[in-house]
Amino acid sequence: MKKICFLSAKEIVDKIRSNELSSVKVAESFIERIEKLDKKIYAWAFFDKSLFLEKAKESDNLRVSGKILGPLHGLPVAIKDIIKTDHMPTGYGTTLKEGHYSRNEAEIVKSLKEAGAIIMGKTVTTELAYFDPGKTKNPHDYSRTPGGSSSGSAAAVASFMAPVAIGSQTNGSVIRPASYCGVIGYKPTYGLIPTSGVLRLSFSLDQMGIMSRTIEDLGLISKVIMKKDPLLQSTTEIKTENMEMEVLKNHPFDPKFIFLETPKWKNLDNNSKKIFNKLRKKLKNNITEYYEPSSFEKIFEYHQIIMETDMAHNLSFFYQKNKNKIGKKLKEAIERGLKYKAKDYAEAIDSIEDIYEGIKEIFHYVHGIITPSTTGIAPIGLANTGSPEFCTIWTYLGMPSISLPILKGLNNMPLGVQLVGEKYDDIRFLRSANWLLKKKLN
Amino acid sequence: MKKICFLSAKEIVDKIRSNELSSVKVAESFIERIEKLDKKIYAWAFFDKSLFLEKAKESDNLRVSGKILGPLHGLPVAIKDIIKTDHMPTGYGTTLKEGHYSRNEAEIVKSLKEAGAIIMGKTVTTELAYFDPGKTKNPHDYSRTPGGSSSGSAAAVASFMAPVAIGSQTNGSVIRPASYCGVIGYKPTYGLIPTSGVLRLSFSLDQMGIMSRTIEDLGLISKVIMKKDPLLQSTTEIKTENMEMEVLKNHPFDPKFIFLETPKWKNLDNNSKKIFNKLRKKLKNNITEYYEPSSFEKIFEYHQIIMETDMAHNLSFFYQKNKNKIGKKLKEAIERGLKYKAKDYAEAIDSIEDIYEGIKEIFHYVHGIITPSTTGIAPIGLANTGSPEFCTIWTYLGMPSISLPILKGLNNMPLGVQLVGEKYDDIRFLRSANWLLKKKLN
Repeated sequence: MKKICFLSAKEIVDKIRSNELSSVKVAESFIERIEKLDKKIYAWAFFDKSLFLEKAKESDNLRVSGKILGPLHGLPVAIKDIIKTDHMPTGYGTTLKEGHYSRNEAEIVKSLKEAGAIIMGKTVTTELAYFDPGKTKNPHDYSRTPGGSSSGSAAAVASFMAPVAIGSQTNGSVIRPASYCGVIGYKPTYGLIPTSGVLRLSFSLDQMGIMSRTIEDLGLISKVIMKKDPLLQSTTEIKTENMEMEVLKNHPFDPKFIFLETPKWKNLDNNSKKIFNKLRKKLKNNITEYYEPSSFEKIFEYHQIIMETDMAHNLSFFYQKNKNKIGKKLKEAIERGLKYKAKDYAEAIDSIEDIYEGIKEIFHYVHGIITPSTTGIAPIGLANTGSPEFCTIWTYLGMPSISLPILKGLNNMPLGVQLVGEKYDDIRFLRSANWLLKKKLN
Repeated sequence: MKKICFLSAKEIVDKIRSNELSSVKVAESFIERIEKLDKKIYAWAFFDKSLFLEKAKESDNLRVSGKILGPLHGLPVAIKDIIKTDHMPTGYGTTLKEGHYSRNEAEIVKSLKEAGAIIMGKTVTTELAYFDPGKTKNPHDYSRTPGGSSSGSAAAVASFMAPVAIGSQTNGSVIRPASYCGVIGYKPTYGLIPTSGVLRLSFSLDQMGIMSRTIEDLGLISKVIMKKDPLLQSTTEIKTENMEMEVLKNHPFDPKFIFLETPKWKNLDNNSKKIFNKLRKKLKNNITEYYEPSSFEKIFEYHQIIMETDMAHNLSFFYQKNKNKIGKKLKEAIERGLKYKAKDYAEAIDSIEDIYEGIKEIFHYVHGIITPSTTGIAPIGLANTGSPEFCTIWTYLGMPSISLPILKGLNNMPLGVQLVGEKYDDIRFLRSANWLLKKKLN
């Protein structure tokens, strides 16, 4: 039998439910793994093994007495350290608010717990989920960045220190670390997962995400955490019943995709360009031509205006407390954010729907858009978390996107393929992602 | 029997359905009324009696052949002239875009037609739905303003030139003219009625409204036009089946209200203050004390930043085409709107939910908030459409509000009582409004 920490989330919950495994056994396996690896990878901002074991014991007691809480009963889940949790500090990656115990647990954490999940600990984020890096290293090469801002979430799943992890994305913070660390990173349609209780950078851009090693696991977690946010009228519900099975179904026909270079293709490194061009060839029967809408060029500016303005507004506590104790990039972003015109911001917000309306009809013809996840493999060095530029368009438009660990770049480092789908069609979108993942392409 | 034009919308549709009346007979009665009165009131921006009769004839033909389109079959409805209609020009109250025939009929108009309503014509709006007045006069006193911006909608319903009319409100444009003209004006919860195809001043503030003479009629129209907007994810659905009956049901207990002076009480004229204080006394068994949240003070500034910024963005076509051909107030608002900081705008937007969260628990204890609709009766003169300041808070927060023609002020002019309710609880809210309307209070 595989070591427990190498099992998928679905395998773990199935084995617990059939009494083949106990939650304590599962916890012990991850504790062993973390004790072995985290002194090199540093994925955890908070991890307390006795608290973890205590919760696992409670979970076992419930199960033995016949009370299965829900579809995640006994499953350990890692949580990005900008998401509020009871009984654990939330650090936000900043020294300005260290060890803060919150009383308002995030909706997403409540949902996980209600379904029986055990919160293992908090994973490292960049400072306030922006660009200034945390301590985490890339599990495939400790001299390289894991990407940001969901650095610890991606690194923990990649190194089997957690079966699944929750992250978040305001620009490229799920897709980029997933690509660099060689795991699946999924950012659902904007609004499908409540962001209440999560550090807010930008109401219009913040989106939750999941790191996993299988598509089935994304379905399993999604069906628990996708729900209408009581605080946010803008969120929408989709039917997620049996989502972990729905996402594995076959398409009745082979899917069709668009391969999109995007305005940032020129910034993809040459070796990665070759690899992606090879992928296009291999997929040629499934790829349709498409001319990129000119509106895409404007998106980078729109995204920046919204994100930096909202950060200036939402992070003013940190900036005002001590603007010299926050990272240089963050400080500069906030200071630019203080200067934009409201009219340009309003135009940037309104254009989200306008631009999406202009492209959404392509989904009558194709199942998704394929594009690189990142400008290449994880860069060397820990001072820089890499560029989110291949994610900006899809985050801004709120479209579901996923990074699939299909390709290998230089030095055998992971290179993610990004698939983007139609809004609110996440289940069929994950089905297409699964098709792509299963096809042998490397 | 009452003259047809004096019937309520519900009476008209019932009589048409039972073949007691034909749509043509109904149309003829309103045509007669319009020909008699509109040369003095000027409520109509576009009215073509032969087009109206033609549509009425089509409606009768369908009915006679057994095809009843829906709950509004044969009912004439007046439409504010910023709402796009097929086969009729949309004038927006501006000379910069006169006689524009659109191809993209508004969602709300489509819904009305699908339910069998006949679009009678377009009612006068202030210029681009802002403060610079149109030609309409107050039906109760031609020397007074009807209020704005839904001036023609209120005046047409008040003078029995239409049974019901559609208006819109970005600040006080439904409640104010309803109060001045002595009709019911209802602005539902933000997001319940699609705004697609309506001149956009501000995405976050624009809300559709209905002018009528009975609460039952509001239910009848609402159940047809409240639906999820295909273009706007932020809209929400409530169950509106049988809404025209639901809103007439009695409360199991007498309702409780808060009487709120709001920060603008000082601007209510002295005579109206006396009248409202008398109302408080009469209602004392139904009124609970409440201390106004300090957050309300800030709302006026927040509302202004959002509205003027969005106008600068959305009306730039008109401003750039010829800024000297638009009204002084509009021009000044757009020019202020060009100057605000994006950060302040983002704060103003985010505070909508924050402030509402802070007050919504009062609806565990009361059924609504009572406050004046306006600073008094309709002012003399047509150059000024009066002040929306008693509406700003509720429009900003997106709460359902209604002006009820309960009181009379100086010269026997109408003086509206505004009732405000909990978001998304519009049906129970209208029930409370009906209770208030039925109680003899003047």
